[in-house]
Order: sequence, then C-alpha cells, then structure tokens
Amino acid sequence: MTVFHHKLHTDKISREIFAEATFEAIRSVDKGIDIKEIDALILGNLSSDSFEHQSHTACLMADWIGLLPIPSIRVENACASSGVAFQMGVMAIASGLYNTVMIGGVEKMTRLNTEEITDVLAMGVDNAYEFPSGLTNPALYAMMAMAHFNKFGSNWEQLSAISIKNHHNASLNPKAQFQSEVIDIAKKIELKKGVKFKDVMDFLRSTFNPIVAYPLRVFDCCPISDGGAAIILTSVKKAKKYSDDPLYIEGIGQASDTMSYHDRKDLTSLSATVEASRKAYEMANVGSKDIDLAMVHDCFTSAEVLATEDLGFFEKGEGGKAAEEGRTGLDGEIPINTDGGLKARGHAIGATGAAMIYEIWKQLRGEAGKRQVRDAEIGLTQNVGVSGGTATVQIFRRR
Amino acid sequence: MTVFHHKLHTDKISREIFAEATFEAIRSVDKGIDIKEIDALILGNLSSDSFEHQSHTACLMADWIGLLPIPSIRVENACASSGVAFQMGVMAIASGLYNTVMIGGVEKMTRLNTEEITDVLAMGVDNAYEFPSGLTNPALYAMMAMAHFNKFGSNWEQLSAISIKNHHNASLNPKAQFQSEVIDIAKKIELKKGVKFKDVMDFLRSTFNPIVAYPLRVFDCCPISDGGAAIILTSVKKAKKYSDDPLYIEGIGQASDTMSYHDRKDLTSLSATVEASRKAYEMANVGSKDIDLAMVHDCFTSAEVLATEDLGFFEKGEGGKAAEEGRTGLDGEIPINTDGGLKARGHAIGATGAAMIYEIWKQLRGEAGKRQVRDAEIGLTQNVGVSGGTATVQIFRRR
Repeated sequence: MTVFHHKLHTDKISREIFAEATFEAIRSVDKGIDIKEIDALILGNLSSDSFEHQSHTACLMADWIGLLPIPSIRVENACASSGVAFQMGVMAIASGLYNTVMIGGVEKMTRLNTEEITDVLAMGVDNAYEFPSGLTNPALYAMMAMAHFNKFGSNWEQLSAISIKNHHNASLNPKAQFQSEVIDIAKKIELKKGVKFKDVMDFLRSTFNPIVAYPLRVFDCCPISDGGAAIILTSVKKAKKYSDDPLYIEGIGQASDTMSYHDRKDLTSLSATVEASRKAYEMANVGSKDIDLAMVHDCFTSAEVLATEDLGFFEKGEGGKAAEEGRTGLDGEIPINTDGGLKARGHAIGATGAAMIYEIWKQLRGEAGKRQVRDAEIGLTQNVGVSGGTATVQIFRRR
Repeated sequence: MTVFHHKLHTDKISREIFAEATFEAIRSVDKGIDIKEIDALILGNLSSDSFEHQSHTACLMADWIGLLPIPSIRVENACASSGVAFQMGVMAIASGLYNTVMIGGVEKMTRLNTEEITDVLAMGVDNAYEFPSGLTNPALYAMMAMAHFNKFGSNWEQLSAISIKNHHNASLNPKAQFQSEVIDIAKKIELKKGVKFKDVMDFLRSTFNPIVAYPLRVFDCCPISDGGAAIILTSVKKAKKYSDDPLYIEGIGQASDTMSYHDRKDLTSLSATVEASRKAYEMANVGSKDIDLAMVHDCFTSAEVLATEDLGFFEKGEGGKAAEEGRTGLDGEIPINTDGGLKARGHAIGATGAAMIYEIWKQLRGEAGKRQVRDAEIGLTQNVGVSGGTATVQIFRRR
C-alpha cells in the first residue's frame, strides 16, 4: 500500500528507538531529572526474540540508555505488555522499594516480512487450540465483529466511521504513523482523482480497501509499526520535585480472561476489560461518566466499539452508533483515541500501552496541539492483549 | 548422551508442566489455601515464543490452572526470569495491592532440536555485537573461566569438583533431571566398566566428556531441560493463616550489567551479582558469613566459582579451591546447590529462579530428605540472566 505515508523507523533497531523515547521523556520533565535518579526500568515488549533475535531486552535497553546498574525488567503480555509494565511500575513505587521508575515499551517489527510478522502476532493466540485452526488476530476480531453485528444490529459503516475519525486524529499528530485523512489517501489513488468527502465510503467499499477477514477490511486493521514510548513514574511525595504540574494516577486495574474463544461466554464483550475497568474505577472513585477522554485498544475498528461499551461510555450495542454520530470525535462528548489510536497512530506492540498514556499526559496538560480536546481533567487508557486474554485500565487526573 | 537418566517432561507442554508445579505448591500449604485466594500470577519464562510458538504465556497459564480473572504477568529476563518474577511478586504484596501472589516459571525446551535451542538461548546475548561474532553462552562462560584461571591460578579440576558435587546432590533429589553420580555415569560406559571413584577424573578428561568451549566440557555445562516451579507469597500479616511455619523473605536485590563483554571492566566477576547481593544483604541486615546454604546460578561450573566469590562466601579467586576442598558440599561450611544445581537438577530456564527458592524452602523446613543439610536457618538464592546482564539475590529465614 505505497499510497500511505508511513512514519516508520526502518533505519533503527529497538535500542535506538527506545533511547529516542526515553530521552524525550527525560527532557520533558518540567524541573529536570538526572537519569541517575531513576531506580528501575520496566519494559513492555512482545517479541524481540522473534523480531530481532534478541531476548533479555530490558537489560539491553537499560545499558543502552545509561541506566546501569539499576534493575531492568521485561514484561510480555502480548499487546498489553506496556500497560502491564505500567501497573508493575505503580506497584514498584507503592511498595516503597523504589522512588522513581521508568516504564515503557518498544517493538521493532518491520525487520521481518508481513507473513512472518503475522505469524509472530499469532503466537499470542492459543497454540494448542486456536492457531492450528487458522485463527490469527484479524480472524478473531472479525468473529467478534460479526457476533456484535448479529446481536446488536451494528454494522460495517459504523466501523468505517471509527477508521475515518482515527485517521483524522492522526493527521493532527506529528508522531502518528499515518499522517493522512482517509479522504486524502483516497485522493492519491489515480482512479479516484477529485474525490469529495461523500466519496470516502465508496473508496472504503472498493477493492482499494480489500477484505482482510470479513467484515474487517484493510482500513479496519491497525498497521505494522516500529516504535517506542517511555513514561517516568514517581511517588506523590517526590512528584513536586520534578514538576509543579504532574499527572496523578488515580486508578489501575488488570484482569485476565481465557485466551481461547471456545471457552468464552460472550464474543461481544471483553470480560477482562470489564473487570479491569471495574477495579480502576473503584480505586479512582470515579465512574465512566466522569472520564473526559480515553485511549482504547483499537487494534481493529470493531475493538474500539467493544471497548467504548465495556468501559461504560455507551450502552452495550451502542458503541458503533455513537462513533457514527461523532460522539467520540475530538469535539464529541468523549473523545476516543485522539492521537489516532492503534489504527492510525500505529501499533508498535510493546509500546502501545505506554504510548496511550503519553497521549493522555499531553492532552491533560494542554500540550496536544491541533488535536487538543477542551477542558479535560480525567483521562483513561485501556490496553488489551491479543483478543482479550489480558486487559489493563489506567485512570489519570490533572489536579 | 543416552547414558544419562533424564527426567524430562517430553510428553507435556508448558501449561501441563506448570500446572503440575502449581498444584504441588497449593497442596503444600500447611493449613490449606483456596486457589481463589491468589490475587495475581507472575510467571518467568524465557521464550515460549521460540520454544512453543506461544506468547501471552502468563494469561494462558492463569487460565489453565483456574486462576481467572486475576492479573497474570509474564516476566522475561533470560535465565533470571523467575528470580525477577519473584522480586516483582514481593513488590506486588509490599505495595498493598495484593495479599497473596503466585510466582513461578516454566520452560518447555525439548520440542526443538539442540541447534535450535542453542540459537534460542543465544538470543540473550547482544544480537548487534556478540551473537554475530559467534558468541553463544558456553563461549561466553568459557572466556570468563579462562580469565579466572589466568588471574587466580584456578583450574579445570576445581570445576570438575563442582560437577561431581552437584551430580551427587542431584542423585539425592527425586526431582532432579540427572539422578546419577558422575561415577555411576562413568560406570555405564562400556569401556570403563568397573571404574572406581579415583577413575572419575580420568573419565572427565576422556573423550566421553568432550570439550564444548575450552576449558568447559560437557560435564561443566547445564543440560537442556523442561520444567516448572511455583511459589506462593503472602504478606507477613496473612502468613499465619496458611502456616505456623512460613519462610520469611529477609532481603531481595536485583541489578543489571552491560550485556556485552567488550564493555565490562572485569571478566572474573559478575558485577550485577555483587550489586544485587549488596542490596539483599543490606535489606536482610545479614552478611555473607550468616548464610547457611545457597543455591547459585551454575549454568556452567565456572559460574558457580564466580557466584560463591561474588556473594562473599569465599575470597576472590578462592571459589574453585573451596569447592575442591569440599567446603561447599552437603556437610561443608556452606552447602551450595544442594538440589544438584542447574548442572544436575536441570535448567528449565524460566523456572530456575523459582526452583532455587523451592529448594531453600525444603531445606529450611527440614524436608529435603537425603540431601538435608543440618541446622540451616538462613538461605540465599542467586539467579543470573545469561552472562550476567541481570542478577537477582534473595535471602530467606526460618524463624
């Protein structure tokens, strides 16, 4: 698909990508921080093993960015790796053992070809039952989409509204992998010269947007990405040393669900998201209606529908309709994936959970530039492992 | 090497191996525990990706042993994965977020052939610098052994004493991979029928014990193993609910070192072990002389020499000599690797750190059967990632 403008780090390996993220994190501390004040590194990464013939990845990253001899830990929970790393970081600080922890994630995927990458991603699916049946991630999410369509009458046009929205948001995000509106991509295609906005749906229905796993088409699927993200966590006591305007972690929750669909009660909801958000809301002492904006795990457009329902932003079955009505847009009642989401910001697997938190940090501090939402005080991130075996939910507040 | 009696779990995949370990852990709780009282699972695993085409491994294990919907986290720090998982478990409890956490590890290695396994293990080595130079783990440890020989006049006969000791200990451990003394293995070889103990060294010098990476021979190297281990951690407050005789965690420490040898100051010591043990001793408020027995990371016999010196049990350069003099035997001043160590108990990578703790638990409770050491009150475990990029040290006490 050469029509897309990919911001990929094709010239860099993981350590270089992650170093770039960490140095920005360090530079962005308002009152400055010496890297030697960081007590531990917790890194999310799906499979540097398969992508770069490299394990023991956290130790390598700690070395590369000058953090030795502090403890370095790699967490692997599929696509939720850095969401989980974040929660471990919170615990590390709450334990009193560490004052300041760097958490983050990295993934360098594009060294392999697309078939090989699909195979690596499919390792997150049960290899005894699902993988031998040919179930890869698009197939699993397609099954969930169809179950949702059947149960609630939702439809593919609603999914497209999510794709269009997330591409729009990404076009306002200098760090996004895709810098183009869907209509701009459509315009670049010779046959569609001079298209207008109303033609976008025709484009999305055309063979330029082929079916990946029915009903999901290319524009319903997140891309293959290289990327890194880093966040610095510290205790409330220490926070004022580094910033007069820190972001507070109000609630966290993590849950697991059975990996295999044949053991699930319902394919129209991720029970791990429901459970993780229940815990996070309880800890934060807020409800879904208090959330001003959220980054959710839209590895497929249908996943965003499920997420906005499971997190309680919309009634079950109403997520797609709400997106189509613009209620999740930048000026909607609850802006979702303001950075473009996995769909258009990109999904560098191990980095995604931390990248979501980075966007909430930018938004709640009013530093999100052209994609800035107004008057946001409480933000939420939801990070999912593959088809919902793991979910983490984090709630942040600017005070 | 068909002469060995391998206790491998060739008929089982990871989930079955780990389930077996967890069920024993649950059954071994003195006053009983309901599996539903476990709040989180933290699993060490090197590379189920490469070994079993499976990532998202912790979630799968949680599902398989009936722990859903609790948080499940996979930690990968090469061969120190479950040592690190243990430390994260301690933090999870100290944070107040969880009361009771299961930590453990699993590795199913034998599905691949030996060359493939060597390749997977070599992923723990820096893939940009060391791996392209042909450096795999035996080569790295051989370099350290040679540096130690040169600096301190230590020798291969001292390494053999460690191999003989660890095989002896394993012969007393029903769970060990090798159930044979070195002499018994020697006896099984036709040419050496009727050998006596004094012939053991001849056997170890013979072509039946070929050089892997000079000076390390087969009997200096840990085997390829399948295995799992599980430990239940709880707060001091809750411990008495489960046992009148719990084991107390007195100190923990973790540190990182540069992965690549070209950046190290010294090849005769693992600086991560020194730093991790410094922290653990400080937290436990004990010194190396207070330790009654220790499980150390003898992936190669030379690693046991380095470990016993770096942990402060012997002066630098004296570790090999001490082993040769029997000071680390079951009835020595500081018994080391009473379960047979990685060398002979086996080294199912992700499980090793937890397996060491299991042995300390058995020994300090007086339940180690024929390999029981006398009057042990304080035990230490040391778990290392590959060539020393990660080290964790844990100190336990029976009160």
